[in-house]
Amino acid sequence: MKIAQIQMPASDYKMKSVARAKQIIDEKVPKDVDLITLPEMFCCPYDIKKFAVYAEKEGGQVWQACSDIAKERQCYLSAGSIPEADDEGNIYNTAYVFDREGKQIAKHRKVHLFDISIKEGQRFRESEVITAGNKITTFETEFGTMGICVCFDVRFPELFRVMALKGARIILVPASFNMTTGPAHWELLFRSQAVNNQVFIVGTAASRDDGSSYRSWGHSIVVDPWARVLSQLGEEPGVAITDIDLAQADTVREQLPLLKHRRTDLYGICNEH
Amino acid sequence: MKIAQIQMPASDYKMKSVARAKQIIDEKVPKDVDLITLPEMFCCPYDIKKFAVYAEKEGGQVWQACSDIAKERQCYLSAGSIPEADDEGNIYNTAYVFDREGKQIAKHRKVHLFDISIKEGQRFRESEVITAGNKITTFETEFGTMGICVCFDVRFPELFRVMALKGARIILVPASFNMTTGPAHWELLFRSQAVNNQVFIVGTAASRDDGSSYRSWGHSIVVDPWARVLSQLGEEPGVAITDIDLAQADTVREQLPLLKHRRTDLYGICNEH
Repeated sequence: MKIAQIQMPASDYKMKSVARAKQIIDEKVPKDVDLITLPEMFCCPYDIKKFAVYAEKEGGQVWQACSDIAKERQCYLSAGSIPEADDEGNIYNTAYVFDREGKQIAKHRKVHLFDISIKEGQRFRESEVITAGNKITTFETEFGTMGICVCFDVRFPELFRVMALKGARIILVPASFNMTTGPAHWELLFRSQAVNNQVFIVGTAASRDDGSSYRSWGHSIVVDPWARVLSQLGEEPGVAITDIDLAQADTVREQLPLLKHRRTDLYGICNEH
Repeated sequence: MKIAQIQMPASDYKMKSVARAKQIIDEKVPKDVDLITLPEMFCCPYDIKKFAVYAEKEGGQVWQACSDIAKERQCYLSAGSIPEADDEGNIYNTAYVFDREGKQIAKHRKVHLFDISIKEGQRFRESEVITAGNKITTFETEFGTMGICVCFDVRFPELFRVMALKGARIILVPASFNMTTGPAHWELLFRSQAVNNQVFIVGTAASRDDGSSYRSWGHSIVVDPWARVLSQLGEEPGVAITDIDLAQADTVREQLPLLKHRRTDLYGICNEH
């Protein structure tokens, strides 16, 4: 399975961001790529004042353009995340996945909102504008079951455990850590969720944009089930092409049977949705 | 709170190991230390053929000597782990903790047994000889609630989540990773359990002994709730003295309220004991 991650900044116009993504894909992504991934909020500056302005309903302009890219390229597309508006006026941080025909096969509304207040560091309150989703998301593909979640969701072990128990051998995470949490925790969290659940994890981030109020740490990453970093970009825009073999998840699970050795008589994940 | 970790190999006679621990404590540990920690199986070679031979009941020779050390030093002692025999002839990998009067205040029987079979790497089947414990262990001290578990237990996020939810701000982990899993995962697991649960974690390991059938990776470690490594030894015998401020756990939990932001409507830890 060949994956292309597009690390790019969001521009001030959402369709300009989509056009830029398309141009990068046309110029830099080999034809035999099976899955293309875009960053969290790839078409909207990561700024709570902008989410409502850029939001669209499922099936909107950005959604349609992403579906078209998947269809044209005949590959899976994880369209990062997009601010989504529902009929009641709620805004969500939503990740869509399209299949090779451009059909939507997954939709994840970020379930953990990013509220942080570090002394002399990052402050951000996503929950002031964004409504949290209410579902844990796995979906079927020709490569088997996959999982998807968004950014801050990566900090919650229960969520990844549920996705792994539902059969995911690879989990996609459009994300944007910042200059405080990125150096401290980005690689650590992706590697540990991968090794604890014996899955591949693909984290795709916006590149750093010093003109933005939220400076993304970048560092789009692919980690294997043994916690090895297969590829990692820096802070600049870029494309990472990574070949993975999902059967490796089965091998690791056999050699070190963590999922089987869980003491479900002592604990378990309940309230699964 | 001042912690002293004793990283040492086990010798062939259990009381010789205890005597060596006592000598190191007498010579190298300052009088104002609040907590001394010893490695997993500090008094027994880590070899499934030896566990039954070295095993003793709670209150046995090694247990008594450890209680005496705590009382004499008037400090808390996490007596690594000891092979424990019960009346039915079961053997457990058991961690005891003594208070400043030498009274046992915690007992944890390793709940996840270490069965691994890595191609061209480590093979070990602890479950052939050891019986798993059936409890998750937290206990009260003058520093507040602490948790304790043993080695392979560190790979299971649910266990640490339960201890954190029960109020632990520091978790002790007598452990011995090996030359395969140590370089790959040791620091990663301690740092991630610390940051996910916003707790201090103290991992105390046997030093490397090339004469042993199981070569310990050593690297006794203390990690803070922001995933910073406060101290880490190498593979050689040694003593690490580390000062920590447990209030830092509260600060981190306030700035980045992970425990509060868990989506218990979507998932939860059930079957807690």
